[in-house]
Amino acid sequence: MREIKTVGEMYSFSRRAKIHSKKIGLVPTMGALHEGHLSLVAEAKKRSDIVVVSIFVNPIQFGENEDFSRYPRDLKRDKKLLQSMGVDALFLPQSREMYPEGFETLVEVKGLSEKLCGRSRPGHFSGVTTVVIKLFNILSPDCAFFGEKDYQQQAVIKQMVKDLNLPVEIAALPTVREYDGLALSSRNSYLTPEERKKAAMLYQTLTLAQDEIKKGERDARKIVSRAQSLLFSEPSIRLDYLQLVDPQSLEEVKKVKGRVVIALAASIGKTRLIDNLTINAD
Amino acid sequence: MREIKTVGEMYSFSRRAKIHSKKIGLVPTMGALHEGHLSLVAEAKKRSDIVVVSIFVNPIQFGENEDFSRYPRDLKRDKKLLQSMGVDALFLPQSREMYPEGFETLVEVKGLSEKLCGRSRPGHFSGVTTVVIKLFNILSPDCAFFGEKDYQQQAVIKQMVKDLNLPVEIAALPTVREYDGLALSSRNSYLTPEERKKAAMLYQTLTLAQDEIKKGERDARKIVSRAQSLLFSEPSIRLDYLQLVDPQSLEEVKKVKGRVVIALAASIGKTRLIDNLTINAD
Repeated sequence: MREIKTVGEMYSFSRRAKIHSKKIGLVPTMGALHEGHLSLVAEAKKRSDIVVVSIFVNPIQFGENEDFSRYPRDLKRDKKLLQSMGVDALFLPQSREMYPEGFETLVEVKGLSEKLCGRSRPGHFSGVTTVVIKLFNILSPDCAFFGEKDYQQQAVIKQMVKDLNLPVEIAALPTVREYDGLALSSRNSYLTPEERKKAAMLYQTLTLAQDEIKKGERDARKIVSRAQSLLFSEPSIRLDYLQLVDPQSLEEVKKVKGRVVIALAASIGKTRLIDNLTINAD
Repeated sequence: MREIKTVGEMYSFSRRAKIHSKKIGLVPTMGALHEGHLSLVAEAKKRSDIVVVSIFVNPIQFGENEDFSRYPRDLKRDKKLLQSMGVDALFLPQSREMYPEGFETLVEVKGLSEKLCGRSRPGHFSGVTTVVIKLFNILSPDCAFFGEKDYQQQAVIKQMVKDLNLPVEIAALPTVREYDGLALSSRNSYLTPEERKKAAMLYQTLTLAQDEIKKGERDARKIVSRAQSLLFSEPSIRLDYLQLVDPQSLEEVKKVKGRVVIALAASIGKTRLIDNLTINAD
């Protein structure tokens, strides 16, 4: 596995691959890899000639009071995992090269970025889209792989790709879960053993909402109200939002019909987690 | 000259050129071509294997009360000119394909876009950078050609290219002027014969400022104050700004040293014109 730390070297590597008509698959990550990431790598391997994984804890997608500095980092372990999977190149860009003094450009997907997590994390998604377009320009991937756990993120990125005519296919792959349903996330490592047990309630809340729909309930307010009562019984969990939204526009849905995304964000202690389920009500 | 009206066809055309290792030169325009544009085309021909000119009056770079609907359009004449110059392809994208319903992404170069023209034309430069990045993604040019008459525009675009790691070289070429110094602009066609005569005062104002610097004056306020007094003598000209700015940051300069841009925007009747001169004071 080639380890690449500069933009120039990464650029040359990918241009060389392009000249030889190789299909490049990119898995952009912030490291602290888990099975969710590895499922993206496995799919990228299937669909590409060359697989590049980037690890970059992107400072501009964190708010001032968020967890940038304590975000989990374990590069040694990450490298071993990626090497064992036969990844071709690991891109480890440096902040000072990605955002040199005088950097002042932002890519913003207006509507989608303002919904759901956008309300409590202003600026988060423009940080994501900006770093993703930079990676796309440096690497020219044919396909980039994202997890559906970050449902809004992949929706925002797909919208950017469409709006800006980026020649990249976006693949969004299913969330990988623990035995009790908890969606894998690097941030799960923040949880104390007690918090970790309670964290399963997030998935339970989603499945409760899903069950309501399966039972025939179509009134979003009733569905949300019944499902979230589970979380209100647990004082250490603070719900940020539980919403039923349209899978494309992320607009809140009042009457459920067709495909709908049940999306949730909540804090357990100091740890903010997100999760979602997509269901077809028809 | 190939005439291309859809994004898909333009994309295929440029990918084919790329596969054959052809260098693509792009001259993005809004049509109503003049000698300024043609000098860009001539330079693109020198530096590229394939020259593509785009003509697109980009709606999102016009403010609500600006001249989008009356912006001069003369496609028949433009085509003849480009054909006679041996342009390989003319890209004529349609608004509904460039900005379909649900379009919501904007690229913004924060600092540079807010200075000079950015103050009186909020949103203008994000409209420019957004359409330019779209054209770059559709066409993958090796080099794109812009005029220095729009000094701030080329500065903003260069900053975007650097910040987002776009693999495109930006060439900024000297302003082409009329016999009396008036910078060529498609908007000059708005001027009545009388306004046209007065329009030469814009260039005279710039050269007055330049002369002050040549004579040894280094105090920007004094330079501006002396130069703009010429315009104040003419009631039909309304000065928007006359500023001495740093060529890179576009920050206003107080003491002149090294290279400085003298930049100006003014309205003559209903027509807003811009111009600039770069001078080295050392």
